[in-house]
Amino acid sequence: MLQVSTLKRKKVSVIGAGFTGATTAFLLAQKELADVVLVDIPQMENPTKGKALDMLEASPVQGFDANILGTANYEDTKDSDIVVVTAGIARKPGMSREDLVQTNETIMKNVAKEIAQYSPDSLIIVLSNPVDAMTYTIFKETGFPKNRVIGQSGVLDSARFRTFVAQELQISIKDITGFVLGGHGDDMVPLVRYSYAGGVPLEKLISKDRLEQIVDRTRKGGGEIVSLLGNGSAYYAPAAALVEMVEAMIKDQKRILPAIAYLEGEFGYQGIYLGVPTILGANGIEKVIELDLTKEEKVALDQSAESVRQVISILSQN
Amino acid sequence: MLQVSTLKRKKVSVIGAGFTGATTAFLLAQKELADVVLVDIPQMENPTKGKALDMLEASPVQGFDANILGTANYEDTKDSDIVVVTAGIARKPGMSREDLVQTNETIMKNVAKEIAQYSPDSLIIVLSNPVDAMTYTIFKETGFPKNRVIGQSGVLDSARFRTFVAQELQISIKDITGFVLGGHGDDMVPLVRYSYAGGVPLEKLISKDRLEQIVDRTRKGGGEIVSLLGNGSAYYAPAAALVEMVEAMIKDQKRILPAIAYLEGEFGYQGIYLGVPTILGANGIEKVIELDLTKEEKVALDQSAESVRQVISILSQN
Amino acid sequence: MLQVSTLKRKKVSVIGAGFTGATTAFLLAQKELADVVLVDIPQMENPTKGKALDMLEASPVQGFDANILGTANYEDTKDSDIVVVTAGIARKPGMSREDLVQTNETIMKNVAKEIAQYSPDSLIIVLSNPVDAMTYTIFKETGFPKNRVIGQSGVLDSARFRTFVAQELQISIKDITGFVLGGHGDDMVPLVRYSYAGGVPLEKLISKDRLEQIVDRTRKGGGEIVSLLGNGSAYYAPAAALVEMVEAMIKDQKRILPAIAYLEGEFGYQGIYLGVPTILGANGIEKVIELDLTKEEKVALDQSAESVRQVISILSQN
Amino acid sequence: MLQVSTLKRKKVSVIGAGFTGATTAFLLAQKELADVVLVDIPQMENPTKGKALDMLEASPVQGFDANILGTANYEDTKDSDIVVVTAGIARKPGMSREDLVQTNETIMKNVAKEIAQYSPDSLIIVLSNPVDAMTYTIFKETGFPKNRVIGQSGVLDSARFRTFVAQELQISIKDITGFVLGGHGDDMVPLVRYSYAGGVPLEKLISKDRLEQIVDRTRKGGGEIVSLLGNGSAYYAPAAALVEMVEAMIKDQKRILPAIAYLEGEFGYQGIYLGVPTILGANGIEKVIELDLTKEEKVALDQSAESVRQVISILSQN
Repeated sequence: MLQVSTLKRKKVSVIGAGFTGATTAFLLAQKELADVVLVDIPQMENPTKGKALDMLEASPVQGFDANILGTANYEDTKDSDIVVVTAGIARKPGMSREDLVQTNETIMKNVAKEIAQYSPDSLIIVLSNPVDAMTYTIFKETGFPKNRVIGQSGVLDSARFRTFVAQELQISIKDITGFVLGGHGDDMVPLVRYSYAGGVPLEKLISKDRLEQIVDRTRKGGGEIVSLLGNGSAYYAPAAALVEMVEAMIKDQKRILPAIAYLEGEFGYQGIYLGVPTILGANGIEKVIELDLTKEEKVALDQSAESVRQVISILSQN
Repeated sequence: MLQVSTLKRKKVSVIGAGFTGATTAFLLAQKELADVVLVDIPQMENPTKGKALDMLEASPVQGFDANILGTANYEDTKDSDIVVVTAGIARKPGMSREDLVQTNETIMKNVAKEIAQYSPDSLIIVLSNPVDAMTYTIFKETGFPKNRVIGQSGVLDSARFRTFVAQELQISIKDITGFVLGGHGDDMVPLVRYSYAGGVPLEKLISKDRLEQIVDRTRKGGGEIVSLLGNGSAYYAPAAALVEMVEAMIKDQKRILPAIAYLEGEFGYQGIYLGVPTILGANGIEKVIELDLTKEEKVALDQSAESVRQVISILSQN
Repeated sequence: MLQVSTLKRKKVSVIGAGFTGATTAFLLAQKELADVVLVDIPQMENPTKGKALDMLEASPVQGFDANILGTANYEDTKDSDIVVVTAGIARKPGMSREDLVQTNETIMKNVAKEIAQYSPDSLIIVLSNPVDAMTYTIFKETGFPKNRVIGQSGVLDSARFRTFVAQELQISIKDITGFVLGGHGDDMVPLVRYSYAGGVPLEKLISKDRLEQIVDRTRKGGGEIVSLLGNGSAYYAPAAALVEMVEAMIKDQKRILPAIAYLEGEFGYQGIYLGVPTILGANGIEKVIELDLTKEEKVALDQSAESVRQVISILSQN
Repeated sequence: MLQVSTLKRKKVSVIGAGFTGATTAFLLAQKELADVVLVDIPQMENPTKGKALDMLEASPVQGFDANILGTANYEDTKDSDIVVVTAGIARKPGMSREDLVQTNETIMKNVAKEIAQYSPDSLIIVLSNPVDAMTYTIFKETGFPKNRVIGQSGVLDSARFRTFVAQELQISIKDITGFVLGGHGDDMVPLVRYSYAGGVPLEKLISKDRLEQIVDRTRKGGGEIVSLLGNGSAYYAPAAALVEMVEAMIKDQKRILPAIAYLEGEFGYQGIYLGVPTILGANGIEKVIELDLTKEEKVALDQSAESVRQVISILSQN
């Protein structure tokens, strides 16, 4: 028998095998960050297996060496290092906000139970909508410590912002940084004064009016894609955002990335999940970075926090 | 005014913005091989723009610097270095083979006209089905020299074969090579004796029976995914295969890759497109590599060639 | 005969096969940016061939596909897209600054002649010391337009600064940006107010004293390595800096990077090469980005410019 | 306090900070495979620190996030997952083979003691010369199980072979595979019949004479570089070979790679270290792959084994 070494393949499970979940699985495997388990409900077992197999068949050509398993059985997620939650339904025409929240809350509760059972030491990243409330639900239901339950929104929002700025300035996306706080979408609080092109504050390079248009387009960035696609929503950029967060934690990179974190006093908020700058490493959210805000920014962030509270108030458990 | 240097961004256009086309566009941009133009018909203009924008918004996070443009206007493809053709319909239940061929032939004729007009110096890679006949159509309609019109099938087939072998042996896909000739799918002629794990012929590592099962699964590899997905067909592995061929040509790598090439005497065939080992470089198919075949292999390849001829005979122009 | 396509392998020549030149060649090939020609004087022909061959023998394992040629014959550099100049001697104990400048000026004149003859359309990046004066010499001797003759210093200086900040904050280097102006080394003008961690200005994260120490260490960063090595100077980070500049130009990325540019009025200077923020693309320096400077920064930059002028005044041709 | 997750940065120590050791450290960090500790003797402490710092300062530009520490203190290697041994002297003119072996044996004994003390669960890869005997020494002195003490030679030898074949055929190195058995250098046993270009046996593509010349050049590949450099030996390709072995083990890839393994009956040998095809994964050498050899190959391998035995007989402890 071989003596076992200290080395072990990493394992990441992605719950929800829709376009975002599937793309996340592919991008994770492509970077050889971990073996990936892609999970969906029993009715979707075959399509989930089909997607996973198709991805795996790309691996000899793309040259990545990572397993991708499609399954409807949570046992296959056992001992995941990280679990990414993309499950949940999208709001359909005629559906009330309450219905959406409650349906997805039910789904989250079930997902949380499975994660807690099979991967009790895992880190969890949540993308499901509405993301602040769903992250809160997973946090409550798993009973995991706050640093290990994290929501995604700011990485995606700032990626969109950076894309629009790069197009405006005709500059490489590599040299644009962006900074956002608060909720996803309409409640996003972009900190333009902390956003740069090659280190130069954007306010010196782009007119105030134009910058406001870019900020506005960023806020509505998800809707822009939905409206273009006609049927469905964005998945490449959301998946890329999730993968960057996973990478920061798997490699313990101590990245400064915006994330939806559980606040206990930071920025003056108590007991809610809100998008703030954080340090992401092997222990998930290792720190929330507090910043001085202008009065205007604080007002916007308060509004964002209030929106989150309203959604949380709809939850059966709050 | 700046003096223009010898350097220029590369441009690849992908015709057809379905899953395979879109995934191809993303993987090309991700490798920074070229700026990518993703084209579909006017009715699909918005979804095509939506997909392209979503991909572009992933670029700041994934760290790649390449433009991706969604369009329904072929003018945007002007002066492409390479054009990848994924357009065409899939066979629907109740549709005859003739109907499929003729519908896609019509689509190819239109695509060929646009390519010849806007990118008269380009290399073309065809994936549309049935691929041998559609490659032939593009060849005839563009009037491009044979080295610049190439079909894809063998890279995908051998990727699937390698995946199954890696699973069987529990070995890294990095060390498995596979070799296929002939048509796609049922007409595939796998040369198992030219397929290895770490340099060791597979026949020494896997029993004859098991190898036959793996070959059979490879032949039906496309169908396996179709049947699992329930609605749609494989796109990750096909896209990866297209990207490997594009890379070989953009970087002038002189890769030995299986490709669908126009034969004028090679392997004893005249005037048909057939899957054979080739050298791919800046000039497309720079050489067809001829091999001695066993009698059995030659019979199988003849059969494959005959299938191709039958499909070509359906074409309006043959 | 094959019809030639629009695709062509890129070619970069590296003049000077010392540690920096050799490492630059390796990193360029590793990224498959171009085929690389590594050139040194006839007396060093064999070691140059040996280094190039050793690197090439690493390529099957590292998986990169690019040729690396070692040579003492400038004919092999013919039609380079970019030429990187690392040639020249280092200052030896007892050698006067004048002697160093004049010796390297003579070397540059010869190098310039060869580049102008064999690669008249190339872009040139100069690293040889003292870099501002040597870039000026190459500019004058080749007669190339100013956008095509560029010196390296700021990418390296800011890389060192970012490394020290990352260590100080225990944060990923991926989230630190730095900004420097002016000359290399002692004359470097760091713009700390344009330097950030995760978008947050460093001044909010690091005390003024500590920041000054970091700035000071950055200024002396080259000397720190020289003093540790005992025999020789830094080459990994300088090579990486050169490669980033080459990549920006080969891929036409429109990166915002600090570079030594010929100024004709920008920042109030006329007719000297000085380190400033630029946009680098296929045409070399496509733009100098002018910034408002504080009085203090302007004084420091004036001093830096004055140092450059003093060195240029030593040149035989000035 | 943060709850610690299951994630942890990997750690690889490289013993010996000469060119090969340093290059290995750089390539490991560049791939973000692990944090790297580069160790040399106290007299070399400063140069070792200097090299490590220079590499680290390249990281913001190359975009890799891994620490590189230069040290003369083995405590810094504590709990390494893998240790790479490149320490030892090179044979100098006038030095007998016995002197070389005994000097390096003494060095290995000390290195083994330090590894056993600080990283008792590590995997060890040895490059020091003569590599079979030095691997044996580390094996005996650490008392580690055989699967965790591995020598490098075949990855390098086959990389050279592949390079020469690629040049001969003017084909991408990506499509050439090579296969070697036995000792390093003169005792190398190349299995040409298991070496391919795009899956086609080389014997069908290259004449027997030419192939013999290539094999001969491969055997003398180390000497060719030594002779060109004039002063020193190859380090890029050796470092790349070490890094591929480390990657296979850190990512548990189950690669089929040639390695110097301790044989207990395999290929008919008992109690010696010899170059054979192996499966490398998280447990080091997880399997030796036995092959049928031709009579000629077996004779050559016997000779190789005999050479190893002769060197081992010089060891103080054998």
